[in-house]
Amino acid sequence: MASTDFGARNGEKAVDLPAKPDAGVYFIGRIRTPWRERKDCPKNARESDAVCTVEVDPRWAEGLKDVETCSHLVLLYWMDQSPRTLVRQVPGHYGVQRGTFALRSPARPNPIAMSVVRLLKVEHATLSVVGLDCLDGTPLLDIKPYFASTDSVPDAQVGWHARRT
Amino acid sequence: MASTDFGARNGEKAVDLPAKPDAGVYFIGRIRTPWRERKDCPKNARESDAVCTVEVDPRWAEGLKDVETCSHLVLLYWMDQSPRTLVRQVPGHYGVQRGTFALRSPARPNPIAMSVVRLLKVEHATLSVVGLDCLDGTPLLDIKPYFASTDSVPDAQVGWHARRT
Repeated sequence: MASTDFGARNGEKAVDLPAKPDAGVYFIGRIRTPWRERKDCPKNARESDAVCTVEVDPRWAEGLKDVETCSHLVLLYWMDQSPRTLVRQVPGHYGVQRGTFALRSPARPNPIAMSVVRLLKVEHATLSVVGLDCLDGTPLLDIKPYFASTDSVPDAQVGWHARRT
Repeated sequence: MASTDFGARNGEKAVDLPAKPDAGVYFIGRIRTPWRERKDCPKNARESDAVCTVEVDPRWAEGLKDVETCSHLVLLYWMDQSPRTLVRQVPGHYGVQRGTFALRSPARPNPIAMSVVRLLKVEHATLSVVGLDCLDGTPLLDIKPYFASTDSVPDAQVGWHARRT
């Protein structure tokens, strides 16, 4: 594993990426938010009540049938501004080195973010939702219904996070 | 939008895929489960208590630091056996046509599955988890800590599903 100068400088650690990807994703729409620069984005998705919109491309619009019956959705989107090489990171607001897979940082081998959002309405191929924290224009990968029976674990713990409070 | 013969035959509806993908994903490991054929897989992830293992490739193993402090994880994985063209589907056990984005079916434009799993242990680069329903050998895309504060919505409703019970 190779450390980049960037990694060595600030306590982070990077690896070389594989020579080529294993599969391809299609951007199926775009997410519209009030945030144009990373510094303006909320620290996490529950920090803002901003209504954001999800614009689904016409090609896929028929896939939205029945989505309006869901109170909450899982959105997957592509954090296209993020480095993909980091295996250890030092989040600025904590100052401790953690493994990438113990963090929700956008920097990860596959920069796919997952957010649970509250659905306000569906009009044609546009959804209005609350619960996003991403940059305006972020590419959309998927929309899924949120099932409390399989997706909700109210008593889940993240030990490293709990210990700092 | 084009309907394939497959789609026309059984009430499903397919579209043409874009000419090329917009971005590439790396397979960062493999998921080992007891299920070798789709017919053997549980209908959903809470239906089985089987302990499955997640093998992370050596390249990415250092990213697992601190993951052992998490009680639950979000796993993203690639359903590489699924068609990507369907916008309307008729799930066999319901018999009603729904939009793809209102379903958790593996058939979707980007066949990325999301499962919330309970973490039993981490040994080197192998995780033991409960809560998967995928085929043995499924490629892994990402591991994230599950935060109840943002990811758990106990009272979420999927209207079309509730109405059938």
